Formats: sequence, C-alpha cells, structure tokens
Amino acid sequence: MTNTSYIDSVRALQWSDDGLLVLDQRQLPARIVHENCRTAADVADTIASMRVRGAPAIGIAAAYGVVLAARERFTQNPLDWRSAVEHDLQRLARSRPTAVNLFWALERMRAVIRRVNTEPVAPLLAEAIAIHEEDIAANRHMGELGADYLANAAGILTHCNTGSLATGGYGTALGVIRSACQRGPRNIFATETRPWSQGARLTVWELNKDRIPATLIADSAAAFLMQSGRVQWVIVGADRIAANGDTANKIGTYALAVAARHHGVRFMVVAPMSTIDWDTAQGEKIEIEERDSRELLAENLLAPDSVISAWNPVFDVTPATLIDVIVTERGVVEQPSSQTMQRLFG
Amino acid sequence: MTNTSYIDSVRALQWSDDGLLVLDQRQLPARIVHENCRTAADVADTIASMRVRGAPAIGIAAAYGVVLAARERFTQNPLDWRSAVEHDLQRLARSRPTAVNLFWALERMRAVIRRVNTEPVAPLLAEAIAIHEEDIAANRHMGELGADYLANAAGILTHCNTGSLATGGYGTALGVIRSACQRGPRNIFATETRPWSQGARLTVWELNKDRIPATLIADSAAAFLMQSGRVQWVIVGADRIAANGDTANKIGTYALAVAARHHGVRFMVVAPMSTIDWDTAQGEKIEIEERDSRELLAENLLAPDSVISAWNPVFDVTPATLIDVIVTERGVVEQPSSQTMQRLFG
Repeated sequence: MTNTSYIDSVRALQWSDDGLLVLDQRQLPARIVHENCRTAADVADTIASMRVRGAPAIGIAAAYGVVLAARERFTQNPLDWRSAVEHDLQRLARSRPTAVNLFWALERMRAVIRRVNTEPVAPLLAEAIAIHEEDIAANRHMGELGADYLANAAGILTHCNTGSLATGGYGTALGVIRSACQRGPRNIFATETRPWSQGARLTVWELNKDRIPATLIADSAAAFLMQSGRVQWVIVGADRIAANGDTANKIGTYALAVAARHHGVRFMVVAPMSTIDWDTAQGEKIEIEERDSRELLAENLLAPDSVISAWNPVFDVTPATLIDVIVTERGVVEQPSSQTMQRLFG
Repeated sequence: MTNTSYIDSVRALQWSDDGLLVLDQRQLPARIVHENCRTAADVADTIASMRVRGAPAIGIAAAYGVVLAARERFTQNPLDWRSAVEHDLQRLARSRPTAVNLFWALERMRAVIRRVNTEPVAPLLAEAIAIHEEDIAANRHMGELGADYLANAAGILTHCNTGSLATGGYGTALGVIRSACQRGPRNIFATETRPWSQGARLTVWELNKDRIPATLIADSAAAFLMQSGRVQWVIVGADRIAANGDTANKIGTYALAVAARHHGVRFMVVAPMSTIDWDTAQGEKIEIEERDSRELLAENLLAPDSVISAWNPVFDVTPATLIDVIVTERGVVEQPSSQTMQRLFG
C-alpha cells in the first residue's frame, strides 16, 4: 500500500454557519444525500430517523443541535432563552434511548449553558466543535494503540460500521483498521451485518471512498473464514461496556467472539471511555433492545393469521472472558475483568 | 398443539398428464406462481434458474424431465428414440453441477431406458413416481428417527430450507421438526440464511402454510439465542456427507455447529443415503462452490474502480467431531466417524 497518510475523507457531520450538514446514512450507498439541519428539532428528527447513527456521531450531532437551539432561542428572547433551550435539550435527549454518548454530550453542553452570562452561541459552538475534534483525536489515538497489536495480523475481520460514519471521524474499530493499514497491507473483511446491513451498506462504502481494499462476507461465513486461516483478529466497537469488560455491541458480535475463541483468533473491542458504564457491574445487567419483526419478515408473513414471528435483538453481550483486548483513548486493557478495567483510572 | 397428523401441504413438484408443475421458489413468498414444464428442456431450465432447488427436489424434477423427454422423442421416432433421450439426459445433467441426487436420479432413469423394449413412457413415469414417493417415505422415516432424540427439546433451531420445498415432500431436517411438533409443542427457530434468504423466504413460508409456529432470526443472532438457553438442538440438512461424517451444507452451518458446541447445544444432520459420498474420505476434499459477488455487494460497489470485493462461498464443511447425530433412512449414526458411519451398511 502506498503511503496515503490517514485517508479519511468521509464525514457524517459537517458544521457551517448555515447549520449542521448531515450525510443521510439511510440512503447509502445508493445515494449520497446531505440534509441541512437548521434547528434543534431538525437534529432530533435526524437522529430519531437514523439518518445519523453510531453512538459517538449521535452525541456530536446532539451537541451541534444545542448550538442551533441557542441561536434560535437567544434571537427570539435574549433575556430568557435558557428555559426554551432546556426544552430543546430534552427533545434531543428523547431522540434515541440507548446511545450513552448522547446524554454525555448533552451534559457537556448544559454545563456551558449554566456558565455563560452573555451571548451563548459562540461558547456553545466552541464546545460542540471541541466534542467533535476530541472524538476524532481519541479515535486516532485508539487507532495507534490498537494497531500495535496487529503487526502479525495478515487478515482482520470487523462487524457493523464503526468508522467515520459512526463517529466524528476516523472511527473506533475501523480507526484501528485504518491505522493498521497505514503500517502495511492487510486483508480486511467486513460482515454484511444483518438486518440493517451496516457492513454491506456503510463500512465497505466508506472503505472504498478511502481506497482501503476490503472483502464483504455474509455474517454466517465468518466462522468458515476463520477456519480457513485468513483472519488473525476480529475488531469491533461497543455500544456499552460494563465495569467488568462485558461488552454490548451489534447483534452478531457474540457469535464472532465464540467462533474466534474456537479458532484461536484474537478479539479486540475499541471504544472511547464514554462508552464504559461504570455503574453496570456486568453484562447481564444490560437491557437488550428488540426491534420490529418487520426488519426480518416478508410482508405476507406479517398477516394477522400468520403463525410466524421474528426475534430481532439489536445487540448481544460478549463476556469479557472472550475478549483479548479493550482499547480506549486512556489506554489498553488486556484480559479485561473488574480488576484489570480499573487500570484505566491509573 | 392439536392433532393435525402430518400437515404437509406444500409440494414443489406435481406431475400431471400435461407435464411437471413446478412451484417457482424464486418468487416465494411474495407470489405463488406455478410453471408447467412440458419438455426436458423446460425442466433443465427450471433447475438451472433455481425455480426448483434442494438436492432431492432437483433429482425428482430431473426424473420427471426424463419422462417428458421419452414422451417427446418416442412420439417423434418410435424406432430410434434412445439417442435423442440420451441427449436430453445429458442436458438435464448439466443443469446444476453439485447436486448429487441429480446424477443418482438420472442413473435410475437410464437403467429403465436400457431395460425397456416397448413403449418407454409408462415404465419411466412409474420409476419417476417411485423416486418421488420413496423420497417422501424416506423423509417421514427420518422424521420419526430424528424426533426420537428430541423428547426434551423445548427449542430447535434450523438453517436454510430443508422442507417440502427442497424435497419430494415432508423434508429432511424440517421433516424431523414436523415429526417432533407432532409429538408435542416446540419452539422452532429458523435462520434468515443469507445471502439467498432461504430461511426467511421459504422455510417460514412453508411452516406458516402448515400452521407450524416458528420464529425467524438473523443468522448472526443464533449464538445469542443459544446463550439465552432457548434451543437445545440445531437440526440441518446436508449437500454432501463425506465417508467420515464431515458434512458440507449451506454456508453458516459450520458457524452454528461451533456455537452449538460452545453452549452444549446438540447438533443433528438429516439426509438420505444418496447424500453420502463414500468416495470422499473427509470433508476437506469437498470442493466449495463460490458464487457471484453480486449476491452481496451493492450495485455501485461493483464498479470497475471499486477496491471492494465479496467472498461468497455457498457451502461450508462441518467436521464430524461437531456433529452429535446423523440421521438417514437406513438408521442413525451417533458420534459420526469413519468407523461409526460403516454401521449404515449393517
């Protein structure tokens, strides 16, 4: 691979004076459509409708949403804008229930609102940009930390989309893959990631944009891929990490971890510190969201007289015992457990 | 469950004096369309285009194709019809490369052709009907043999379509599930089975027709399903079984076997004797067909400048060591190996 230092051309979110430009991820890869959000309500709707997805990206979008809220409310009523903005903050918080980063980002913005006593838009925009830039910086740092483990990995498998589309930029698991590919050629494999097909629609599209060669596989071909000896590492992101390292992530992650252990393939989780839920002791306490049968069942099997249903969990939980390494921007935890995870506070 | 003795209403293939009526499986479940094949060429085209699929069903369709060939050729030239029919036989043999049952059924029909010295259509039709009826009888017998293992199985997971649609009727793995459901209620789970979605399109449609309640899951949710304790057995069919019990079957079967072993879930393969390839000592000798990237990749990722490809194996091989039971119409082999498989000759 030629030296293409950090090819990372895709951005899910771009701020301009006109508002927040959002790349509509529901329409990828068929159509590249940007939508300009001019109000906090626009941003909340964009998150709820999954035009933007991925926990870090949702948090960043919400932060910019607060800037738009302040701009609108301060113009309307410069003397009493705070209560109206708080209303918008709550609306943004309701846009998605599970993304931890959403609440974390809104809390950072709320702290600025409490602090300012003049025009609020400039300091809030500075904070939103900081959240965005810190996310990219954290991802690049995690990329390097993770790539240190991959010197002898000829093949790497990833699941779902954890790239620039899911974050401020660069990506978490996909960021580690970017960094590894900078150091030398790898065979990158991406799962389709049913039922939303984030791998088939988003990950390979993003990698193609950045000219990182990759191979798409059906989710169910992953174990055969490992049996064939073509991958040495599986690298995934996380939606929530419990205090002992148990990791909730996109459905199918657990199946990959089980297959990896069976084949002696190593397993890495990459996520920022804000993904770790220190109040949840272990993974079995994490509630798993289930989605509509419509995502799986054909129309005529949804008829009232049908005896067919679907079980459509969004996430599963991979026990820490099946995880070799958790990479955060604060450092790396090998063989995660309640004890070893404490090192991140060191 | 009420006593509904052997609800088995779906037929992929139905013979009439007018020809072979084929249920077009490419259009299921959206549309129920039958196509009437009046010539051997029609049947060959129907197999090649996958309107009919499933190794046993392909063999039966080809047998009826030979009847149609004999009818046409004998009418055209009652004194020298054999060479023309042999031409049609070869055309049928070329319709699909891997289905072992296709060649086995054509060989049975060829034996009748060699034997007859009068009008050939009646004896050939009798043989085709025998192949069809023997297949259903074998499936019903396997159903009972397999169900004997499932007395304590509250939940059963199956993969791909191995039912009436894939066979003469009743099904192999799905036949065992039918028999088990006759004996008492079970929770039946079916995988989507990407990339052709035989589970989502065919298995749950067939079960709904026969009022057998079932739950569809994404392929990648199977390991989480096992972790949740909801299934005690995985039951699958086979495309080819090596002499030591290693089993080639639809991609994803191996992943299910690995996950089953990890969770202490038991694993059953159901297939007629004609699926066993005694000339192949072990599974690694079985060549795995790979299909077109188009089945996985979005249109714009197939562009010439794309750096994205797809790996799309049709089958994988599950080692006999991960299989608890192989069920055939000749009997059952527990803990299959080169030695134990020999019992089927006893």
